[in-house]
Amino acid sequence: MQVVDLLLEPTWIVPIEPGDRALEGHAVVVDGGAIVDLLPAADAKARYAPREHVELPGHVVLPGFVNAHVHNPMTLLRGLADDAPLATWLREHVWPVEARWVGEEFVRDGAELAIVEMLRSGTTTCSELYFFPDVLAATYRAHGFRAVVGAPILEFPTAWARDADEYLAKADALVGDADGLVGYALAPHAPYTVSDPTFERVLELAEARDLLIHTHVHESSAEIDEELVARGVRPFERLRRLGVVSSRLLAAHMTHLTPEEIELVAELGATVVHCPESNMKLANGFCPVDRLLDAGARVIVGTDGPASNNDLDMLGELRTAALLVKGASRDATKLPAIRALRMATIEAARALRLDHLVGSIEPGKRADLIAVDLSQPETSPVYDPISQLLYAAHRGLVREAWIDGKRRLRAGVVEDVDLPGVLAKARAWRERIAGGAGA
Amino acid sequence: MQVVDLLLEPTWIVPIEPGDRALEGHAVVVDGGAIVDLLPAADAKARYAPREHVELPGHVVLPGFVNAHVHNPMTLLRGLADDAPLATWLREHVWPVEARWVGEEFVRDGAELAIVEMLRSGTTTCSELYFFPDVLAATYRAHGFRAVVGAPILEFPTAWARDADEYLAKADALVGDADGLVGYALAPHAPYTVSDPTFERVLELAEARDLLIHTHVHESSAEIDEELVARGVRPFERLRRLGVVSSRLLAAHMTHLTPEEIELVAELGATVVHCPESNMKLANGFCPVDRLLDAGARVIVGTDGPASNNDLDMLGELRTAALLVKGASRDATKLPAIRALRMATIEAARALRLDHLVGSIEPGKRADLIAVDLSQPETSPVYDPISQLLYAAHRGLVREAWIDGKRRLRAGVVEDVDLPGVLAKARAWRERIAGGAGA
Repeated sequence: MQVVDLLLEPTWIVPIEPGDRALEGHAVVVDGGAIVDLLPAADAKARYAPREHVELPGHVVLPGFVNAHVHNPMTLLRGLADDAPLATWLREHVWPVEARWVGEEFVRDGAELAIVEMLRSGTTTCSELYFFPDVLAATYRAHGFRAVVGAPILEFPTAWARDADEYLAKADALVGDADGLVGYALAPHAPYTVSDPTFERVLELAEARDLLIHTHVHESSAEIDEELVARGVRPFERLRRLGVVSSRLLAAHMTHLTPEEIELVAELGATVVHCPESNMKLANGFCPVDRLLDAGARVIVGTDGPASNNDLDMLGELRTAALLVKGASRDATKLPAIRALRMATIEAARALRLDHLVGSIEPGKRADLIAVDLSQPETSPVYDPISQLLYAAHRGLVREAWIDGKRRLRAGVVEDVDLPGVLAKARAWRERIAGGAGA
Repeated sequence: MQVVDLLLEPTWIVPIEPGDRALEGHAVVVDGGAIVDLLPAADAKARYAPREHVELPGHVVLPGFVNAHVHNPMTLLRGLADDAPLATWLREHVWPVEARWVGEEFVRDGAELAIVEMLRSGTTTCSELYFFPDVLAATYRAHGFRAVVGAPILEFPTAWARDADEYLAKADALVGDADGLVGYALAPHAPYTVSDPTFERVLELAEARDLLIHTHVHESSAEIDEELVARGVRPFERLRRLGVVSSRLLAAHMTHLTPEEIELVAELGATVVHCPESNMKLANGFCPVDRLLDAGARVIVGTDGPASNNDLDMLGELRTAALLVKGASRDATKLPAIRALRMATIEAARALRLDHLVGSIEPGKRADLIAVDLSQPETSPVYDPISQLLYAAHRGLVREAWIDGKRRLRAGVVEDVDLPGVLAKARAWRERIAGGAGA
């Protein structure tokens, strides 16, 4: 009998790879933070002597979700100004509030609130893009949360840096600090906020340090129209000419794509981060997910910031993605449940270059695992646990989560977090930002 | 001091009518199953001596949701066959299983599972359309659940009736049995399954007994095309010529409408029951909600059956409805949060002719109330409780529900229901229907 840390025995396991199906009566064996085996439960109990044996009847275990496009400190602005168009929302509400309030404390407190929300809804890795990436990295590490932190790069001054030179210098200084849990990307904000020379320097730094480039592309049609007037070229095409469109690129949003642009995304190996709920809520249009997939492009999923969604709920976002592509393509067979789940696990891990660590339940990978309770009324009966996960389950049924083999969520409660303190800080920020009453 | 049954004191109350805003520091007073007052909490505590005083800090109280289009026994078929087009799904999966299994026991067990799911997600009234309406009515009554039960009318034989004569006779026999909790409607299935002479008899009976007519109209474009070939007329226009389009009509789905049809819906006072998630999942298209609302038509919301959604979650459905209309109309100001909430409360109550009883928190109405916890991480901080309800809350945060003044959900647990028994029956049905293993 081999002594191991954990034997996890749910009713179903969806390993994601290999195979596109749910295993019944199996167990995952974890030791030293890594997955060491996946095998029939009876064999597992005969072969391993676990320090902890967790039985989860009626639950399905799968890899934790990867939320590929977040601005987590914006949890503190959740619901500040809804039902407004993108330009109004940004210029009259979000940017003025950010200019007044964003600093180290705001970023840390907002990220902590986001970490709690993400753990409670089954997300174990996020790809972040916000100010004070140093504070973000420290906060994710402190909470044992896996993240790729994008160092922001803009032309104009914010609390984080004065100009492109300083943003780039700070990014360069930061990215050497990566470890097994937190990595870095370069995050030039968007074509409409970053100049050609700065994109060239971003690309140079990305190549020198072998980093991903995470940016917003074609979030709205207005942005495309304005760039066409100002520069005579569509933003995606401008990025392509600059050499930014490659397997290094995580392009968030990507609405309003031409057939040629769709082909180029696939051909050049860039990743599209689809944010369906944000795109709908801000009326920015639809990302042509079915045509991108048909062309062979990689599409993964992000919630976007909680001020424009207004949540960090990946189960909900995947469900919306699956429903929307069926509705928009008029084909109910598009993006079946397992394919949607793959977008938030193995495909996202590959895009983020983390697939040697996470994205599937395979021996050798780190144990980033979640358990969802399918024994409740809203998920009964279970004909197909994969269907049930995507189309019937909701984030309230995510009960357990491990990151790097460490338990982070137990029976729906986040471990090692001062929840009342996190919530009190959120209320205090609301008081400061909006003034007046409210609980 | 007036002795009353219940004083309910949450942080916020969204009465829906009058006014479109949230009240803070108020209380709802309930006696004899009715709302008797809505006033500042301090005044309420000075004026009323309640038998039960329920304080709900961080919660918002609002009228229970009305789910306007359900086939609740189909909970037992939830997830049976996903990612398939409507025609395949119906003809190869749903109809054969229904033909084999639907009977009194199936209908009762499925409706009980649905009632539990509805209560746990804040729905207190449903508008039902399924076989064995007598069993449905008895089940809703047994569980103290408010419902408008549509007596099904078809041309072909099912376990419930042999032919149109028998469906109509059974409907006629049933509808006299209405009481304060359960009412009836006539539910001819759809234009493609009901003949002109039968629609004429439905209309005659509806007028004689003053009943609503609940049916499926323009669920898919295929149905429109087939009717155009078979009869040379679009289904909605055929119903209009037959005199069925009036304030009696609840027309579910209503995708693919012409500008003239949109005008007629408004002019004739019919109600559209929008089922956005079902329409997307089965790739049937989009109901033009913004244009219907602009034309002055009444639009309310239903989840459709849990086999095609796959849930009975009205908070989720309203969120999808709001996001989808913004995305499809390219206008982020369309269907703001309060308007979406009105669709599932007062507007639905008016369409179902229940607005003297439910749909708002106004003295004199019956106490159909729900409480949603906005103090959790995913709904923090609260700038606007109405925004938070629609865009950030999820059904797992619905904690309390009363119907007709009687507590039906307490701290997330359904009262007076044998939940293990309900779940065991669902599992047994799965075994019978699918055979094989599974929890």
